[in-house]
Amino acid sequence: MVSSSTTTPYGDTVNVDLGDRSYPIYIKENLLADGAVLGKHVPSKKALIVTNTKVGPLYSHIVKKQLEAKGVEVYEVVLPDGEEYKTMESIMTVMDAAMEHKLDRKSVMIALGGGVIGDMCGFAAAIFQRGVRFVQVPTTLMAMVDSAVGGKTAVNHPKGKNMIGAFYQPEAVIADISTLSTLPEREFRSGLSEVIKYGLIKDPELFVWLEENIDDVLARKQAALAHIIRRSCEIKAEVVAADERESGMRALLNLGHTFGHAIEAGFGYGTWLHGEAVSAGTVMAADFSSRLNLVDKSVYDRVKRLFQRCHLPVDLHNSLAVADVGNDEYEAKSASLTKDAFLELMSFDKKVADGKLSLVLMEGPLGKSVVTSKYDATLLASTVSTYCKH
Amino acid sequence: MVSSSTTTPYGDTVNVDLGDRSYPIYIKENLLADGAVLGKHVPSKKALIVTNTKVGPLYSHIVKKQLEAKGVEVYEVVLPDGEEYKTMESIMTVMDAAMEHKLDRKSVMIALGGGVIGDMCGFAAAIFQRGVRFVQVPTTLMAMVDSAVGGKTAVNHPKGKNMIGAFYQPEAVIADISTLSTLPEREFRSGLSEVIKYGLIKDPELFVWLEENIDDVLARKQAALAHIIRRSCEIKAEVVAADERESGMRALLNLGHTFGHAIEAGFGYGTWLHGEAVSAGTVMAADFSSRLNLVDKSVYDRVKRLFQRCHLPVDLHNSLAVADVGNDEYEAKSASLTKDAFLELMSFDKKVADGKLSLVLMEGPLGKSVVTSKYDATLLASTVSTYCKH
Repeated sequence: MVSSSTTTPYGDTVNVDLGDRSYPIYIKENLLADGAVLGKHVPSKKALIVTNTKVGPLYSHIVKKQLEAKGVEVYEVVLPDGEEYKTMESIMTVMDAAMEHKLDRKSVMIALGGGVIGDMCGFAAAIFQRGVRFVQVPTTLMAMVDSAVGGKTAVNHPKGKNMIGAFYQPEAVIADISTLSTLPEREFRSGLSEVIKYGLIKDPELFVWLEENIDDVLARKQAALAHIIRRSCEIKAEVVAADERESGMRALLNLGHTFGHAIEAGFGYGTWLHGEAVSAGTVMAADFSSRLNLVDKSVYDRVKRLFQRCHLPVDLHNSLAVADVGNDEYEAKSASLTKDAFLELMSFDKKVADGKLSLVLMEGPLGKSVVTSKYDATLLASTVSTYCKH
Repeated sequence: MVSSSTTTPYGDTVNVDLGDRSYPIYIKENLLADGAVLGKHVPSKKALIVTNTKVGPLYSHIVKKQLEAKGVEVYEVVLPDGEEYKTMESIMTVMDAAMEHKLDRKSVMIALGGGVIGDMCGFAAAIFQRGVRFVQVPTTLMAMVDSAVGGKTAVNHPKGKNMIGAFYQPEAVIADISTLSTLPEREFRSGLSEVIKYGLIKDPELFVWLEENIDDVLARKQAALAHIIRRSCEIKAEVVAADERESGMRALLNLGHTFGHAIEAGFGYGTWLHGEAVSAGTVMAADFSSRLNLVDKSVYDRVKRLFQRCHLPVDLHNSLAVADVGNDEYEAKSASLTKDAFLELMSFDKKVADGKLSLVLMEGPLGKSVVTSKYDATLLASTVSTYCKH
C-alpha cells in the first residue's frame, strides 16, 4: 500500500491507508480558526478536549467556540505540561473527567497539544469504555511530523518510556501550521530531529533538501514548514500502512531512539526533550553503524553536521538542559550515567525479543536503514563508552 | 459465522472464530496437571502468572512446574482477592512486575483465577508494551462460562464498573474442570447466573435442561458441569464471533447486567458477587419486560424460580452479603440505594449512547431477547421502585 497525498479544502491531505482504520492528515494554516474540518470530525453530542497548561490557554477557546457553534457540548481537562507527567496518573485524571461529564461510547476526545498530550489522549481514548473516537490536533512540530501520526499511544513507566500503551488510530489529524508560531525555539528544533530521521531511514532527497534549505526551515518560512511536514507525514504514513503494529519495517522509525530513550531515562524524563535525545541518539547510531562498517565515516560526519546546524545536541552534553536544571544537577546525572548504566537502560527497550536487543542502524549510502540484532556487542559498548564519562 | 465445537486430546474444544484472532477453549478435567496444552500455548522464554492470594497457593505451583519443565522462566504476581481490587492500581502492580522481570514483547502472561484476575491480566497484557500474548486459565465457573471468553478486559472506575479496558483476545482458554472442586459454594452459584442467562437470551433448550437438571449441577457432577460449560462457551463464542466489539448483537450478553451493575456499585464493589447481582438484575429485567408486555408474567415466574433453586438473590436482599459485611452496614447501603440513586447508577452504563440508555430485555416466548432504548421510562422507574426501599 502507498499512502497518497492530495489537496483538499483543508490543505495538503495525506491519507494513512489502514483499511477500515484509515484517516486523513490535514496540513494548512488557520485550520482551527476556520473550524470546518474540526466540525467534520467531531459529529458527537459531547467532546472532551485533553490539553495542557501551556497549549490550553492559547487554543482551547478556539476549538471550543467552533464546536459549540455546531451544538457540541465541549468539556476540557488541562494536564500539567511535560514528559514527566506522561504517566498513568494523568490518564486517570482524564478518566475522572470523562466519568464526571458522563462521556459515552459515541463521544469524541480531542488531543490538543504536543506529542505528550497526543500520546496520552490517544491512550485514554483507547481504554475509556474500551475505546472511544479521538482527533489529533498537534500544536508542535514534533507532533505534526511524528507522534500524532501512526496510532502509537502510551505513557511512561518509571523504568522505561512508552512501556504502557496501545495501538489506536485517530479519526483525523489536524495539523494547523499557524500554531507553530507560538512554539518555543527549543521545542521547534527538537521536532526537526524526526524530520532528519525520515531522510536518513528512507529518503536521501529529503536529507539533501534539508542540508540546502535548513535556514528557511529555522526561520519558520511557511512553505518550508509545509514541505517538511507533508513529506514527513507521507513517509510515516507509508511505513505505518505497511506495518501498523511494528512487526517489521515500522521499527525503522526508531532510528536513534533506543540510544535516545536511554538518554531520556538516564537524565530523568523531562530533562532532555525527546527530539534532543533522538538527535544525540541518532549520532550514536551513526557512530555505531560506522564502527560496524555499515556506513562510511563521511555519513556520520554529515549526520552530525546537520544536527549541529539545527542547534541540537550531538553528544551527552545538552546546554539547554543544563540551563534548565542547573549545572550541578546535570553533572550529577551525567556522572551516574556510566557505560554500564546506559547499556542497562537500553536493554529495557521494547525491541528486545526473548532477551536480544534489536537496533536500527544505517546501512549503505545515506538514506537507508536496517533493523538487526546481529552485531558485535563489544563494538556497541565502544560506542557507548565514547559518549559516557566512564 | 458459527463457532464449532470438537473433541481434541485436550477435551471438548470450542473454537472462537475471529479470523486471525481466533482461539480455542479447552474444557476437561486435569488439564493443568497434564501440562501439554499449557506448554503448547506458552512457547516463550518468559511467562508471568497473574493470580490472587486465594487461587495462587492452590494452582500456581502446578502451572509453574509444567512450564519450567519446558524451559520457560516463570514469574508470578499475586494480587489481593476481590472485585474491590479490580483497579488501575492492581494493573500497575502487574506492570511493575513485568518491568522488574524484564518481560518483552514475546513474553506470555497467564491469567490464573476467576473473572477479576482474567479481566485484569487481559487488560495488563493489552497495554504492556502495547500488547503481549496471554492465556486464560479460569478457575471459577463464572470465568469458564463467561469472563474468560470473548476478549473483554477491564478494570473498574470508582464511578462505574469496567469503565477502563480494552477488547483483547487471549491465545487460548484452558478450562480445567478439576479446579472447580476447590471453588467455594457462593462463588459456584454465582457462576450459574450467567449459564441461566445464556438460556434466556438464545437457547430455551438450555433453560429447560437447567430446570430439569439443576440438582446434578448443584452437586457438581462432572458430566453436568462439562455440559453447561461447553454449551455456554458455544453460545458466547457464536455471539462474540458475530460482533466482537459490541456494536450490536453482543449487547444481548448483558441481559440483567445494567440492573446488576447498579446493584454492585450501589452496595460497593465486592459486597455482592457479580453473579449474584446478575441474578437479581435479571429478575428485575424480567419484571420490566413483563410490565412492558414483552413477555408473559409466567416467564418472569419461571426465571425467578430457577434463580431461587440456585440459592441466588432475586431482589435486593442478599443474605450472603449480609453475613459477610454485617447487618448494619448492609442496611445502611440498602437505605441509601433509593430509586433515584439506582437510576443514576444505571445511567453510567456503557450502553448509553448520546444520552439514551439501551437495555437488554426479554421478548416473546422464553429464550429470546432484544436490545432497545425505546421504552416507557416511567415503567422502568416502577420496576426500580418495586425493588428499592424508597
